[in-house]
Amino acid sequence: MEATSTKPATGCPVARTVDVLGDKWSLLIIRDAFDGVRRFGQFQRNLGVAKNILSARLRTLVGAGVLLSEPASDGSSYREYVLTDAGRELFDLIVTLRQWGEAHAFEPGEEYVPLIDGVTGEPLAKLTYVRPDGSPVRADGTHLGEPRRMP
Amino acid sequence: MEATSTKPATGCPVARTVDVLGDKWSLLIIRDAFDGVRRFGQFQRNLGVAKNILSARLRTLVGAGVLLSEPASDGSSYREYVLTDAGRELFDLIVTLRQWGEAHAFEPGEEYVPLIDGVTGEPLAKLTYVRPDGSPVRADGTHLGEPRRMP
Repeated sequence: MEATSTKPATGCPVARTVDVLGDKWSLLIIRDAFDGVRRFGQFQRNLGVAKNILSARLRTLVGAGVLLSEPASDGSSYREYVLTDAGRELFDLIVTLRQWGEAHAFEPGEEYVPLIDGVTGEPLAKLTYVRPDGSPVRADGTHLGEPRRMP
Repeated sequence: MEATSTKPATGCPVARTVDVLGDKWSLLIIRDAFDGVRRFGQFQRNLGVAKNILSARLRTLVGAGVLLSEPASDGSSYREYVLTDAGRELFDLIVTLRQWGEAHAFEPGEEYVPLIDGVTGEPLAKLTYVRPDGSPVRADGTHLGEPRRMP
């Protein structure tokens, strides 16, 4: 890791999340977990990441309540890493990363692996982030407020 | 940066995006850009990041088409970094990071800085990612498909 770090206990919720998973390997581990990867060796082969880095990232994600480490479902001595409920709420994050990449990080004609929407059988359409009343939110319709306390 | 890296030209759109901005500083630079930060010195003071790291991250983000580097709007000799149209599409990403942090990275009673929804004047409600027909998408309703070519 690089030397400098954000201040501890920042009041910015973006920074709190980024402190836990603002790292390419952590994000790709979460992606793989959504795709059904559970074991250390599977993550390691998929990502081509050094074992010590993978160990550290898995430990951080378990500590932050994103992954749960549990005995393998087949009764073997392996351990498996599965998304917690809080971890499953990161689906939106992985989808935003994917949709931006699909729109801006490929050339026409380049091959890519789509995420298929089980409802339509087609690649997932461009999603929109909406309020509870169904209206979309734009960046320029928001601003930072005064600090307040969490309920 | 750490030694290992994902394979170049992966067909995974998540990995393509993560290769550009899967890094805490890049994500916090984009957050600050949405909050109106434009100048090198402002980013540097806000983030408390080393200048050489900030320079490298800004260069990557400009190269990836997320930020545009342009002469300062006040006619001074400074340069300013502003989000491109593609960069502004990362608002969803910053909001997902924020909403996960608000839900999972604070203790009750802890102080945080809310994002105010200009429409309601209240902290932004929990958003939902929906298809064009307004229906929400769940992780277990999707799966990876066979590789295909970008149009």
